[in-house]
Amino acid sequence: MPSKEVNPDLLKERQTATFDPHEFSVFWAGGEERYKEKKSLEKMFLEDPELMDDLPISYMSHKELYEHSLRKACIIGEKIRKLRADGEDGVDTYNALLGGSLGAAILKEGNPLTLHYVMFVPTIMGQGTMDQQVEWLSKAWDCEIIGTYAQTELGHGTFLRGLETRADYDARTQEFVINTPSLSAYKWWPGGLGHTANHAVVVAQLYTKGEFRGLAPFIVQLRHSDTHEPLPGIDIGDIGTKLGMKSVNNGYLGLKNVRVPLNNMLMKNQQVLPDGTYVAPKNSVLTYGTMMFVRCALIRDTALSLAKASTIATRYAAVRRQSPIDPNQPEPQIMDHTTQQLKLFPQIAKSIVFKTTGDGIWNMYNVLSGEIEQGNLDRLPEMHALSCCLKAICSADAAAGVETCRLSCGGHGYMDCSNFPTIYGMTTAVCTYEGENTVMLLQTARYLVKVYGQALNGEKLVPTVAYINDALREREFVNFDGSLESIVKAFQFVAANKIRIAYEQIEQRRKQGHGTEMAANLSGTFLTAAADLHGRAFLAESAYTELLAVSRQVSPALADVLKVVLELYLVDACLNRIGDFLRFINITDKYVTTLEIRLQNCLRQLRPNAVTLVDSFDLHDRVLDSVLGAYDGNVYERIFESTKKNPLNKEPVNEAFHKYLKPFMKAHL
Amino acid sequence: MPSKEVNPDLLKERQTATFDPHEFSVFWAGGEERYKEKKSLEKMFLEDPELMDDLPISYMSHKELYEHSLRKACIIGEKIRKLRADGEDGVDTYNALLGGSLGAAILKEGNPLTLHYVMFVPTIMGQGTMDQQVEWLSKAWDCEIIGTYAQTELGHGTFLRGLETRADYDARTQEFVINTPSLSAYKWWPGGLGHTANHAVVVAQLYTKGEFRGLAPFIVQLRHSDTHEPLPGIDIGDIGTKLGMKSVNNGYLGLKNVRVPLNNMLMKNQQVLPDGTYVAPKNSVLTYGTMMFVRCALIRDTALSLAKASTIATRYAAVRRQSPIDPNQPEPQIMDHTTQQLKLFPQIAKSIVFKTTGDGIWNMYNVLSGEIEQGNLDRLPEMHALSCCLKAICSADAAAGVETCRLSCGGHGYMDCSNFPTIYGMTTAVCTYEGENTVMLLQTARYLVKVYGQALNGEKLVPTVAYINDALREREFVNFDGSLESIVKAFQFVAANKIRIAYEQIEQRRKQGHGTEMAANLSGTFLTAAADLHGRAFLAESAYTELLAVSRQVSPALADVLKVVLELYLVDACLNRIGDFLRFINITDKYVTTLEIRLQNCLRQLRPNAVTLVDSFDLHDRVLDSVLGAYDGNVYERIFESTKKNPLNKEPVNEAFHKYLKPFMKAHL
Repeated sequence: MPSKEVNPDLLKERQTATFDPHEFSVFWAGGEERYKEKKSLEKMFLEDPELMDDLPISYMSHKELYEHSLRKACIIGEKIRKLRADGEDGVDTYNALLGGSLGAAILKEGNPLTLHYVMFVPTIMGQGTMDQQVEWLSKAWDCEIIGTYAQTELGHGTFLRGLETRADYDARTQEFVINTPSLSAYKWWPGGLGHTANHAVVVAQLYTKGEFRGLAPFIVQLRHSDTHEPLPGIDIGDIGTKLGMKSVNNGYLGLKNVRVPLNNMLMKNQQVLPDGTYVAPKNSVLTYGTMMFVRCALIRDTALSLAKASTIATRYAAVRRQSPIDPNQPEPQIMDHTTQQLKLFPQIAKSIVFKTTGDGIWNMYNVLSGEIEQGNLDRLPEMHALSCCLKAICSADAAAGVETCRLSCGGHGYMDCSNFPTIYGMTTAVCTYEGENTVMLLQTARYLVKVYGQALNGEKLVPTVAYINDALREREFVNFDGSLESIVKAFQFVAANKIRIAYEQIEQRRKQGHGTEMAANLSGTFLTAAADLHGRAFLAESAYTELLAVSRQVSPALADVLKVVLELYLVDACLNRIGDFLRFINITDKYVTTLEIRLQNCLRQLRPNAVTLVDSFDLHDRVLDSVLGAYDGNVYERIFESTKKNPLNKEPVNEAFHKYLKPFMKAHL
Repeated sequence: MPSKEVNPDLLKERQTATFDPHEFSVFWAGGEERYKEKKSLEKMFLEDPELMDDLPISYMSHKELYEHSLRKACIIGEKIRKLRADGEDGVDTYNALLGGSLGAAILKEGNPLTLHYVMFVPTIMGQGTMDQQVEWLSKAWDCEIIGTYAQTELGHGTFLRGLETRADYDARTQEFVINTPSLSAYKWWPGGLGHTANHAVVVAQLYTKGEFRGLAPFIVQLRHSDTHEPLPGIDIGDIGTKLGMKSVNNGYLGLKNVRVPLNNMLMKNQQVLPDGTYVAPKNSVLTYGTMMFVRCALIRDTALSLAKASTIATRYAAVRRQSPIDPNQPEPQIMDHTTQQLKLFPQIAKSIVFKTTGDGIWNMYNVLSGEIEQGNLDRLPEMHALSCCLKAICSADAAAGVETCRLSCGGHGYMDCSNFPTIYGMTTAVCTYEGENTVMLLQTARYLVKVYGQALNGEKLVPTVAYINDALREREFVNFDGSLESIVKAFQFVAANKIRIAYEQIEQRRKQGHGTEMAANLSGTFLTAAADLHGRAFLAESAYTELLAVSRQVSPALADVLKVVLELYLVDACLNRIGDFLRFINITDKYVTTLEIRLQNCLRQLRPNAVTLVDSFDLHDRVLDSVLGAYDGNVYERIFESTKKNPLNKEPVNEAFHKYLKPFMKAHL
C-alpha cells in the first residue's frame, strides 16, 4: 500500500490556506446534522469490506462486471432493508446510496437495482390508485419483485407521442394485450431491464373500444418469479456495452401479445372501466412535476461530478512538477503555471455555483409543489423553462469541465485509474437523458419567445424573466462598470437581446409565409442561443445572490475566499460570452483586456487556497477513486500500486507470446 | 444479418445529390492511383476472415483483449513481411496498416506492434551509425526482435531535460550501466512495452567520465529471446486500462544496474569513445524534423477521425426520425432540424479543411526537409511554430467535433456499437501525446511574440506571419464586407492584434520587474489565445486557398458543393471567435445577425448533399464499425443484431440471479 504520509507539496498547500476547510465542508454538506449523517453513512458503507473491490472493475469483461455489480447491489439492497426495518428510511439516504457520491463509490458504473427504487416504486406511488398501491407497494419495497420503468423505445425518445408500443383492451377477458409492433417499438435503455428486473412499468399507447386514448402505464411481469425465465411473448436482454453506466444492465424488451389484467394499468390519473369505457385524466400538467423534480436533482449531480474532477486535478497539479518557468529554477508545481490555473479554478468555481444554484432551484421547486397541490399552477411554466435550460447548461458545462480537468493531468488523466474516464462517462450521459439538451433549450426558448411577446404587449412578467421588461424599457445598457452587480445585470440585458433576436427571427420568417412551427425550426439556432443566455443570466444572478448570502453567514476568512470564487465565476462567465456582451453593450477592446487581467488576478488570489477549497468538498478517497486525487497525494506510489492489480501483470510472460508472437518472430529462422 | 437493402431515406438522399461522389472520393484519396491502391488494400485486409472479430472487443476483459490483439498484430506483421518479400514495401501501406483507417478497422483500439514499426525501426535508421544499422535493422525488419521506444517517465513528460533515467559509462568493461533511480523515473507509456517487446530504445541522461553529457538513446534488451522472461534488473509490465488505445499494451519499465555494451548507444549524432571521451552532436536542431513530421501526420489523423464521426452522425440523422416540426406532419428526418444541421455540417466542413490543410502542411514539410538536408534552416522555426499550434487546434477541435457528433445521435451514440466512444478515445489522445496542446500553443506563442518584436523593429517577416507586418501598417481594419477573402484577412488582423496584446502583456510585466520567463508565465493565457488565433488564421487562409484551387480542377457540380463547404467553414469559424472579431473590427450587432443568417443559409444549401458528401469520404463499413453509420443505413436492424453478440444474452438467466438476486428477493419470505 502507498505510504500514509501526505505528500509534502500538498501538506504545504494545506498549511498556508487562509480559511478552515471544516467550516466549508459543513456548509457544503448542508449543515452540521447533514454533515454528521454523511460521515456516518460513509463509515457504514465505505468501510464494509464486502463492498470493496479487489479487482478494479475496468479489468472485468462486461459479463463479469454485471455479475459483480448485481452481487453488490443485493448487499446494498439488504442494507437498505435493514435501515428501513430500523426506521431509518430517509429518502436522502437512499438517494445517496443509489445515485449520489456514496452510490458512486460502491458501484461507480451504476447499480442495476437503482431504477427499481427511483422509478418503479415512485411510479406506483404516483400513478397507482390506493388499491393498486396496497397490492404492489409492499412487494416492491421488500424487493419481492424487482421492477424497472420502460418508456423509451429503440426508435423513439423525446417525442412521447411517437411511441409505438400499444395496449389494446379486450373487454371480453378484461385484459390488455400489449405489443411492440415493430423493431423500432422495442423498449430500449431501462436500467436493470436486461437480466435483473422481473417486472416493469411499460408505457404504451392505450386503445379501448377500438379508439386511441393516449399514453398509459402498465405493470407487466417479465420473468418467472422462481426461475427468472422470460415469460411467453417476452423478448428481453441487455443492450450491450456503453461509454459509461457500464453496470446498469440497460435492457431491451419486445412484447408479443402479452396479456395483463385490467387492474395492471396504473389508474390514479385516468381509468379504464371493465366494459372499456375510458375516463380521461383531469389534469395532464401534473406530470411536469416529476420531470422538473428529476431535472433539479440533476443540476446538483453535475455539481458533484465537477467537484470530483476538480478535486482530483487540483491535487494532482499541486504534486506534479513540470517545465521550469525560470530555466534556472527547478520544475514548479504545475499549478503555478497560469495556463493550468485557468483550466482548474473556473471548474472549482462552477462546482460551487452549480451546487448553490441547484440547492436554490430545489427550494423553489419545493415551494412550487406546495402551490401545485393547492391547485395554483401559475409558476409552473416559468419553473419548467428554467429547469430545462439549467439542466442543459450545467450538464454540458460539467462534462466539458471534467474533460478540461482530465486533459490538465496530461497522459495520466487518460488512465482509468485516474477515474476521469468513468466520471466523464457518467457526466456526459446527463446531456442526453431526462430530455436531450438541445430539446431542453428549445423548450425553454419557446417559453421565452412567448413571454417576450407578452412583454411587448406591456404585460408584467414573472420574476425569472422580469429582466426582459427592464431591457425593453431601457433599450441601452449604459453603466457597465465591471462591478459584479453590473456583470449580472449585463448578462440579463444580453439575454433579453438574444431573446429579442430569436423573437424577431421567427416573426420575420412568418412574414415570409412560413407557419409558426416551421418559422421556429428555421430559427432554431437563434432559439437555443437565447435559452443558453437566459440560463447563464440566471446562474450569474444566483451565484451573486447565494454566494453573497453565504458570505454573510460564515467567518470573514471563508467569506473572503467565497468572494474570490464569485468574482472568478462571473468574470470567467462574462469572458466566455464576450462576443454577446460586445454585441449589445458598449465595451472597448481595452476594457476586455482589463477583464482578462482581472480574471488572472482572481486566479492568483485563489491559488493559495485551491487545494484547501477542494479538500473542503470533503470527498472521500473512495468517492474519488483516483490514484491522482487521493487525499495523501502519493500520486506515483498509487499509480504504481495500481499496476499490481492488473491481471496481465500476474504472469511475467503472457501465453499469447507462446501462441502467436514467438512463432511469428521465429517464422523465417 | 441485417438486410442488404439500403434504407429508403438514405437512398433518397443519394438520388437527389447534385454531384458525383466518386469524383470527390478520388480527390479525397489523393488521386486515381492512390484510390485504386486503397481499394486493393481494403480487399486484401478487410475481407480476410482471419482478421474479423466474432466477439466485439468491448465485451472482452483487458487480458482477453491483449491476447486477441497480439494474435491479429502477428497476422498483420506476417502480411507486411509478405508484402516486403514481394517488393511492395511502400511506407504508405505500412502507415495505413498500422495507424490509418485500415489499421483502425482491424485493431480499433490500437496495435501492440505499432511502435516497433513506427518508432523502434525509424529511430535505429535515424540515429544509428551505418554499422549499427547493419547490426540491428535486418533483425528488426524481420521481427526477429520486437522493439519499442521508451522516453516518457512516470514523473516526466514534455520537459525532456527533467528525465531521470541515467546511463553511466563504465570504461573498464566498456558498458553503460542504466538505472531508473526512483519511482518517478520509471519509463511509462511506451506502446508494446508491457508484454510484447523484447527490446527498447531507452532514452537516458548520459554520464561519461563522471560528467553529464545530455540525453542519449540506448538499445536495451528487456526479455529473453526464447523464454520472453524479463532479464535481470528489468521490472516491466502493462500500465493498465485506459480511456482509449486499449490494446496498445502500454508498459512501464524500471531498470536496475542494467548493463549494455558501448555499441548499444545509437551514435550517429553523438559518440562515446571506448575510453569514455564524449563527442557532442554537431547540430541539435535536427531532432525538430522528426517532431514536425509526426505533428504534420497527426493533423491528417484528426481529419480522418472527424470524417468518421461525421459520416456516422450524418447517415444516422438521415435515418432517424423525431419530433415533428409541424405538429400535423409525421416526424421528420432529424437532419431537417436546423439545430441538428448546425451540429453536423460544420464537422463535415472541418474534416475537409483539416485534410486539405494537413496535405498542404505535409508538402511544405517535404520542401523544408529538402532545404534542411542542404543546410538551410531558415524556415525551421516558422514551420515548427505552425505545426505546434495546428496540432493543438486540429486535435482539440476534432475531439470536440467527435463528441458533438456523438451527442447528436442521442442515447444511441452512447452505445459502444455506435463506435463513437472508441473514436473519441483515439482522437482526444492526440491532444496529449506528441506534445501536450497547451505546451504546443505556448511554443507557437513564444515564436509569435519574438517575430512581433522583429516587426516592430521594421523587419520583414517570413510568409506565414507576414500578416503581422500588414496589421502594423494598417492599424485599423476598414473594409470588412463579409466576403470570404475579407473573413480570411480579418482573421489575420485579429490574430495580429492578439499577438500584439500578448507582446504588450509580457512587456508590461517586465516593466513591473518580472524576468522575461516569469512575465511570459503570467501572460500565459494571453499567449495561448494568440497562438490559437494564429493557427485559425492559417486554417482560414488554407481553406480559402486550397478549396478554391481544388474547385478549379473539378467538375462545376462538385466545385459548387466545395464552395458551400468553404463558406460554411469560414462563417462558422468567424462566429466561433466573434468576440475577438468584435474587439478589433468594426462590426455592428445587426451584421452579426446577418452572419448568423448566412450560416443558416449555408446549412440549408449543404443539406441536400450532406449524405453524399460523407459517402464520398469513402470510409469502408469496417473502418466506421458503427451500427449507426453503415452505408446501408439499416440502423435499428444493426443495433438489434449487435445485442445477439453480447455474451450476457447467450443465456436467458444469468447465474448471478441464482447466486445473489434470488436469495435477496426471497430473504424475508
